[in-house]
Amino acid sequence: MIKLRAGILGATGAVGQNYVLLLENHPWFEVNYLAASPNSAGKRFGDAVAGKWFMDKNFPSNLADIVVGDASKPEQALEKCDFVFSSYEGSKENIQETEMRYAELGIPVVSNNSAHRWTRDVPMIIPGINDYHVEVIDTQRTNRRFSRGFVVTKPNCSIQAYMAPIEALWKAGYLPKRMIISTEQASSGAGYPGVPSLDLLDNIVPFISGEDEKSEKEPLKIFGTLTDGEICLYPNLKISATCTRVPVINGHTAIVNLEFDNKKPGSLEEIIDIWKNFLAEPQKLGLPSAPQHPIIYRYEDNRPQPRKDRDAGNGMAVTVGRLRKCDVLDIKFVSSSHNTILGAAGGAILTAELLHVKGYL
Amino acid sequence: MIKLRAGILGATGAVGQNYVLLLENHPWFEVNYLAASPNSAGKRFGDAVAGKWFMDKNFPSNLADIVVGDASKPEQALEKCDFVFSSYEGSKENIQETEMRYAELGIPVVSNNSAHRWTRDVPMIIPGINDYHVEVIDTQRTNRRFSRGFVVTKPNCSIQAYMAPIEALWKAGYLPKRMIISTEQASSGAGYPGVPSLDLLDNIVPFISGEDEKSEKEPLKIFGTLTDGEICLYPNLKISATCTRVPVINGHTAIVNLEFDNKKPGSLEEIIDIWKNFLAEPQKLGLPSAPQHPIIYRYEDNRPQPRKDRDAGNGMAVTVGRLRKCDVLDIKFVSSSHNTILGAAGGAILTAELLHVKGYL
Amino acid sequence: MIKLRAGILGATGAVGQNYVLLLENHPWFEVNYLAASPNSAGKRFGDAVAGKWFMDKNFPSNLADIVVGDASKPEQALEKCDFVFSSYEGSKENIQETEMRYAELGIPVVSNNSAHRWTRDVPMIIPGINDYHVEVIDTQRTNRRFSRGFVVTKPNCSIQAYMAPIEALWKAGYLPKRMIISTEQASSGAGYPGVPSLDLLDNIVPFISGEDEKSEKEPLKIFGTLTDGEICLYPNLKISATCTRVPVINGHTAIVNLEFDNKKPGSLEEIIDIWKNFLAEPQKLGLPSAPQHPIIYRYEDNRPQPRKDRDAGNGMAVTVGRLRKCDVLDIKFVSSSHNTILGAAGGAILTAELLHVKGYL
Amino acid sequence: MIKLRAGILGATGAVGQNYVLLLENHPWFEVNYLAASPNSAGKRFGDAVAGKWFMDKNFPSNLADIVVGDASKPEQALEKCDFVFSSYEGSKENIQETEMRYAELGIPVVSNNSAHRWTRDVPMIIPGINDYHVEVIDTQRTNRRFSRGFVVTKPNCSIQAYMAPIEALWKAGYLPKRMIISTEQASSGAGYPGVPSLDLLDNIVPFISGEDEKSEKEPLKIFGTLTDGEICLYPNLKISATCTRVPVINGHTAIVNLEFDNKKPGSLEEIIDIWKNFLAEPQKLGLPSAPQHPIIYRYEDNRPQPRKDRDAGNGMAVTVGRLRKCDVLDIKFVSSSHNTILGAAGGAILTAELLHVKGYL
Repeated sequence: MIKLRAGILGATGAVGQNYVLLLENHPWFEVNYLAASPNSAGKRFGDAVAGKWFMDKNFPSNLADIVVGDASKPEQALEKCDFVFSSYEGSKENIQETEMRYAELGIPVVSNNSAHRWTRDVPMIIPGINDYHVEVIDTQRTNRRFSRGFVVTKPNCSIQAYMAPIEALWKAGYLPKRMIISTEQASSGAGYPGVPSLDLLDNIVPFISGEDEKSEKEPLKIFGTLTDGEICLYPNLKISATCTRVPVINGHTAIVNLEFDNKKPGSLEEIIDIWKNFLAEPQKLGLPSAPQHPIIYRYEDNRPQPRKDRDAGNGMAVTVGRLRKCDVLDIKFVSSSHNTILGAAGGAILTAELLHVKGYL
Repeated sequence: MIKLRAGILGATGAVGQNYVLLLENHPWFEVNYLAASPNSAGKRFGDAVAGKWFMDKNFPSNLADIVVGDASKPEQALEKCDFVFSSYEGSKENIQETEMRYAELGIPVVSNNSAHRWTRDVPMIIPGINDYHVEVIDTQRTNRRFSRGFVVTKPNCSIQAYMAPIEALWKAGYLPKRMIISTEQASSGAGYPGVPSLDLLDNIVPFISGEDEKSEKEPLKIFGTLTDGEICLYPNLKISATCTRVPVINGHTAIVNLEFDNKKPGSLEEIIDIWKNFLAEPQKLGLPSAPQHPIIYRYEDNRPQPRKDRDAGNGMAVTVGRLRKCDVLDIKFVSSSHNTILGAAGGAILTAELLHVKGYL
Repeated sequence: MIKLRAGILGATGAVGQNYVLLLENHPWFEVNYLAASPNSAGKRFGDAVAGKWFMDKNFPSNLADIVVGDASKPEQALEKCDFVFSSYEGSKENIQETEMRYAELGIPVVSNNSAHRWTRDVPMIIPGINDYHVEVIDTQRTNRRFSRGFVVTKPNCSIQAYMAPIEALWKAGYLPKRMIISTEQASSGAGYPGVPSLDLLDNIVPFISGEDEKSEKEPLKIFGTLTDGEICLYPNLKISATCTRVPVINGHTAIVNLEFDNKKPGSLEEIIDIWKNFLAEPQKLGLPSAPQHPIIYRYEDNRPQPRKDRDAGNGMAVTVGRLRKCDVLDIKFVSSSHNTILGAAGGAILTAELLHVKGYL
Repeated sequence: MIKLRAGILGATGAVGQNYVLLLENHPWFEVNYLAASPNSAGKRFGDAVAGKWFMDKNFPSNLADIVVGDASKPEQALEKCDFVFSSYEGSKENIQETEMRYAELGIPVVSNNSAHRWTRDVPMIIPGINDYHVEVIDTQRTNRRFSRGFVVTKPNCSIQAYMAPIEALWKAGYLPKRMIISTEQASSGAGYPGVPSLDLLDNIVPFISGEDEKSEKEPLKIFGTLTDGEICLYPNLKISATCTRVPVINGHTAIVNLEFDNKKPGSLEEIIDIWKNFLAEPQKLGLPSAPQHPIIYRYEDNRPQPRKDRDAGNGMAVTVGRLRKCDVLDIKFVSSSHNTILGAAGGAILTAELLHVKGYL
């Protein structure tokens, strides 16, 4: 099988480094183009990341000699890749424009950036939850007269720790009505250098810029219905979120209090069974990055813990625990997942796999 | 002025060490009796804590030669102290019985233990919130035919981070109806050796045994009304709590989502003003350990932080920040305080000061 | 190929849990017997470690139903295993006696314990360094009239971070004469619960009981010569060590200052070449747990770092960096390795592999 | 008594913030001028540090409205201060030139910067060790035709953890000949934002740029003799240092191996007595920031620990422990002190106090 040639925009940055590692030995994709800011452009990749490679694992040695392209010049990617992952940094306007120029040139863009998340004809996809939103790509292509190219986004990492358990209950007929969420998020979510050690030694920081708002709004688009190729925000869910930073390297943890709409599960055991048996599109389609079980329930009182559970399902599963009745809403639980794998590069790779199977790449 | 002679039961333990330091140079009390388990009894205090003194500051050198008493033998405290602070460890039954035997012998007990918190004629006091519950002592003395002695308790450390802000709103006429709380609690709350470092390096633990329940129930007694010298639990407040442990030495942080009963504040500014202007009994009575302002509001987005705010008001103030509207309940905010000072030994010392002024010691 | 049946003494403890994980899918050995203290004996392994399993990865599900044996009763191991790994806890005398009873019954013991390290006819082996010391087993068998059984030990974890680089230089003709070493050791070295979090948050502890002494003496036996089946301590090396504990989960780091005996390398480059090209018995014999390169040299100024380098060579390699001239002795460098893999269970498994190839198992 | 008016160059930075807090309520000095980079110049100090104030304690409210000056324009300081503390950032050349321009204008400069440490006629002073080097100021004034102004520096923070114990032995007649040192340094030594949290969670970094070299060379100037108003480097001491960064907020710890020149102490007890009884100029002169005892010896095996010992003597004392014989050199010990107090702002304030008493301010 001939592998699709993937490009990485922002390859020298924090998310880019994750892409580089996760795509090593990928069965369907191979990294064939690495682009970054004009500063790094023209350098060997090995030189461009020297002193800036912060991942625990080294990058594949065969990438060291690739000459880094200029991510702001989409034409450089032509002939070199069949699609790109974008974790390119810049102003919102700049990213919006640049990503669309790749699409215009016929290069599909799977983006980690928030820039296009609220663009009407750009879907924000979590495989296993709103896979059918890929159809918005057709609308986008029509609207913008793109032939092969398009832009899709993935949501913020903070919500991925608990979207799967909500979706599983939804599919079982139990719709969410109101949610109060607080998160304990890992340092790597802020990239590198990111959060100073002086802020996280013997300390937590109860604020992450923009994160509360993203956590409250993005689920409404993801749970949105599709009408005539357009997404209508889901109107019947209210979320209140408080996001905090804790001294953890990888793994976001969320404490979720949830109220159901009219219909409620009969027991906590029923809910756990729903979670344990949940299988979604990525599992049914056999996507290479899909975990065997998207949701893992741990019965131990003291789980999930980010360090012990972040690697479940190769970092692509959500681990849930501490399901209890909530005296204010209906239920409460703790949910955790790997923020830079499921929540960032891994989730985008899974999206690309989905797009490939659906014929969009 | 002649100082009251205080005893410390459990003086060699984690809370006991806090008492020792906080009572150094106290204007009204002086430590005159140190008691611990039979293991330590009979040793010099300096020897009993050798290798077990885990506080950053050393203990006062004048205590080194005090011979440690046996806390399980209340008669040893007679003639040596006018009242005792109890952080004695043991089974619930054992603590209940032992503390009452001190009271029976005429020695008032201000206890950190949870053993008597739900005993009907024992008040659970937070000075500045339910000071008038001290009257339950009269009932207790009558019930049990105590003359001078009695037992009072203080609530669990986890709720002290947010009880003052709730009380301030209550006094202003805004009663709480429903609260969803999640906490990020410091390691010192588990005592020493307490939480293993392997559990808190690059990790959080989303569970503290018994803590969710205490957080949900104890406020109902504290906010209870007094009828004929008995406390009736406050019936109109529902609390749902999830308590977690984070890699912080001292300082519990709570994320509070709050719904008011019928009457609601007009604006967030009004709430902040209520908090900033809140003064309670300890301030009015000029208690030595009372902070000038029991509640400090920080306008910065990223506060309160446990390391930076735990020492506010010498560890006796609550620092609040991030007040926002909540789309599910009414408001949400983050609140933090020092768990071993306000939340434990400091809070109990403030209670003793209150009891002294009220004529009970 | 029929796998050898391995037993694990102390299987529920910290090192035992490492054995369980590292032996999963081992090509030569399979775990067939799990033993622990009388407390755990008779329980299902799954029950015995419930709430005590502290490794990030779960234990293989097929071990859950194995009934735990009593490690203090060697006869229980008969028929169940061809040899045992011992990380059984107890007094020195108790361990010495128990391990020898296994040997007497014909069951070879590869021990992590320090109890027999200084027993004259028991070798202390680091594969790749003193492989030929296995011959002491013959002496031991003769002395004690053992037929098949014997006891071998491995040295303390703290020295493994730098023994390989010293050995590589030795083999190249550059003998060490004097060494000054300080270590920054990981929390997992103390087992679980081990070091309290209150000791390692915002702190280091400059003392590990017994560790300085082991670091100074054990290399003398390992580098000892063999005469008539007996080890003579190497007389010409003086070591001064200071061992400290730092807030790191896994990975011991050593700062080594080294003076050579008469002959000295010509340049730092020569030394790096020696390290990079070093291959030893485990590599030549193709032992399954042997890393491809026992020593990895990192040229970056800021390496080795325990979190980034501990997994090099699947946790079995030593990573070295910062080689510089020393103005007091001859050279200095920083060396790091995984303390619970190379330094404990992994090192013992490699020893067992060596013993198997040499015909002792 | 009229207080001297102090200025702080670089007042918004990490060291500057320390100065601000340490000079609050100083008996001899009052902060009357705050200067920073052109970016901050012209702003209210409260605005200039908004979101950048990283100290645990707040700055004195009376400084909030001071308009920040431009540190690169020495003339702005005229009339506003009698001397300045300099922690101004910039290139070495720029700092060298700027500090000398202050001196030229008649404003003495006590500098934390390394820029002038090796300028021949600029002394590098640790009060209590080389107080008499202040005489080099006379040479400097003569050389450069300064009337009132001058520049003095203080050494790097990393060496302050162990210079006092060396000096105490020296004064007792035991001169150091060779030293091998490794340090475990706190995050705050790198300023703010400084070291990323991703580098120090579950990790140490065995490298701090320039720190090994400073540790090896600066003591030679501090121990240098004065001949004709010039410092001759001490020729008979060789130091080899390896400096590492650990996850500690404040407090540098050093592991010191020391060889004496011809004369050696008779016993470890003698050394401890020398340290405990050591008193130096700052104590004899009664300087306000001088600790009662510059060296505190702790007999416990596991001390000094940075978190527990950094505040000894209000952060101005050195705490020493673990004195043992060294089998390679003569003795070894562990020494620790507060890097941003004794090692930075506090040390410079003590220097200013010394200069004031000596008539130089």
